[in-house]
Amino acid sequence: MDAATPFPTPPGLRLVGFDGDDTLWRSEDYYRAAQADFERIVANYVDLADVHERLYAIEHANLALFGYGAKGMTLSMIEAAIAITGARITASDLQRIVDLGKTILRHPVDLLPGIREAVAAIAAEHEVVLITKGDLFHQEAKVRESGLADLFRRIEIVSEKDAGTYARVLGEFDLAPSQFAMVGNSLRSDIAPVLALGGWGVHMPYHVTWVHETHAELPDGTAARLRAAATPAELPAAVASLAAAAAASTPGDTRLPSATGAPA
Amino acid sequence: MDAATPFPTPPGLRLVGFDGDDTLWRSEDYYRAAQADFERIVANYVDLADVHERLYAIEHANLALFGYGAKGMTLSMIEAAIAITGARITASDLQRIVDLGKTILRHPVDLLPGIREAVAAIAAEHEVVLITKGDLFHQEAKVRESGLADLFRRIEIVSEKDAGTYARVLGEFDLAPSQFAMVGNSLRSDIAPVLALGGWGVHMPYHVTWVHETHAELPDGTAARLRAAATPAELPAAVASLAAAAAASTPGDTRLPSATGAPA
Repeated sequence: MDAATPFPTPPGLRLVGFDGDDTLWRSEDYYRAAQADFERIVANYVDLADVHERLYAIEHANLALFGYGAKGMTLSMIEAAIAITGARITASDLQRIVDLGKTILRHPVDLLPGIREAVAAIAAEHEVVLITKGDLFHQEAKVRESGLADLFRRIEIVSEKDAGTYARVLGEFDLAPSQFAMVGNSLRSDIAPVLALGGWGVHMPYHVTWVHETHAELPDGTAARLRAAATPAELPAAVASLAAAAAASTPGDTRLPSATGAPA
Repeated sequence: MDAATPFPTPPGLRLVGFDGDDTLWRSEDYYRAAQADFERIVANYVDLADVHERLYAIEHANLALFGYGAKGMTLSMIEAAIAITGARITASDLQRIVDLGKTILRHPVDLLPGIREAVAAIAAEHEVVLITKGDLFHQEAKVRESGLADLFRRIEIVSEKDAGTYARVLGEFDLAPSQFAMVGNSLRSDIAPVLALGGWGVHMPYHVTWVHETHAELPDGTAARLRAAATPAELPAAVASLAAAAAASTPGDTRLPSATGAPA
């Protein structure tokens, strides 16, 4: 927690961060499948057009208490099912909803095609880290199962991906945002906060996105620090393009205060 | 992930770790209260002497999927209530069980009397870190609310506290186990794994302990590296006693392989 002595930041990319869910491996598909099953169960009790919206309203209201992840989502599904059915739903059907949550937690890790090769190619040129959001226990299990852990210099599992989180992580690496690029599918969580800090981003959209992750405003004047990739195979070239731009830029001193973890 | 070059470890304590739940602030009391309420709800359906054991059996079976924390515990309570009542429990009563979980998540952080002064006194002599287990989101909220975060050099929220976890944390600090002492209420999570690595421990029992945390075998020949404290006020003297013993010991080279997070 020492105050940093300002000194010029050398230009160039020093660290590339990767998101986990829907960037390295499939995730949203499993949530969508659970939600569809939830709607089928509830449809046995009520004939409503807005079941989906009512579930999301309860999920959203619970986020501040539960945080992200399958366990909180399951509790929200149970609460929504009870509310939507006027408490008429049976205990057996509520057990089916608990089981939907367990199915999400148990699903095998399904890597996106070509992602291992893409991460390995980028890791050959840059230090890479994994910065993933959600439930610590579930994310750790997915990282373990993915077989990708060895490619990453560090695994950061965080409860929220905002500018404060990225600033903390960069502080621990003693890097300025101008030396960091983030690769991910969510404009809100992976791209916007990093661009806002002065970093770089590669957006690789996933075929489905949770509504919560779709609200994002990119800071003005940051388009030059953003690349897009349609598939993992396009990631190495996108990062190389950012690295070239970063090497050519003279960002001045944007180094963050040091927050390294080593004891003095 | 570089291999460490072996070199002698200077004797002496360099880092003191503190557990969170039931060491800095009350936790188990809230789980016990929720469990008592759970048993009262279920008692409206069945008259069983072993409700408590059946709940723990389901909780324990779900630990490998849910990990620790209030959300997993709430899902286990829901599942147990459905199983114990033969699915006769109403949706309204299941909502009451969801609310028990929310009550745990919402309870204000209640510091143990004297703990702030004890941590501050120890922090004046040693680097201190917080190493707490459980749900990332809930633990972060408790750390924030505790008002103690500024005393700690780093906050580590982990999914399990075993020898592997402590070895990783020490690796990130580039310290040998002989330079580290852990303070906590759980012999299983806070004391036994640290002693097994070659570190030091201060056990401060809490007035109630979750049955899962009571199973622990202390490694043979480690009694000299363990102190007990009945209250937070006794912690500084206990740590000072360990520090004196550590300064007098010649542990040789037990430094762990380096796993620091800074990029090369």
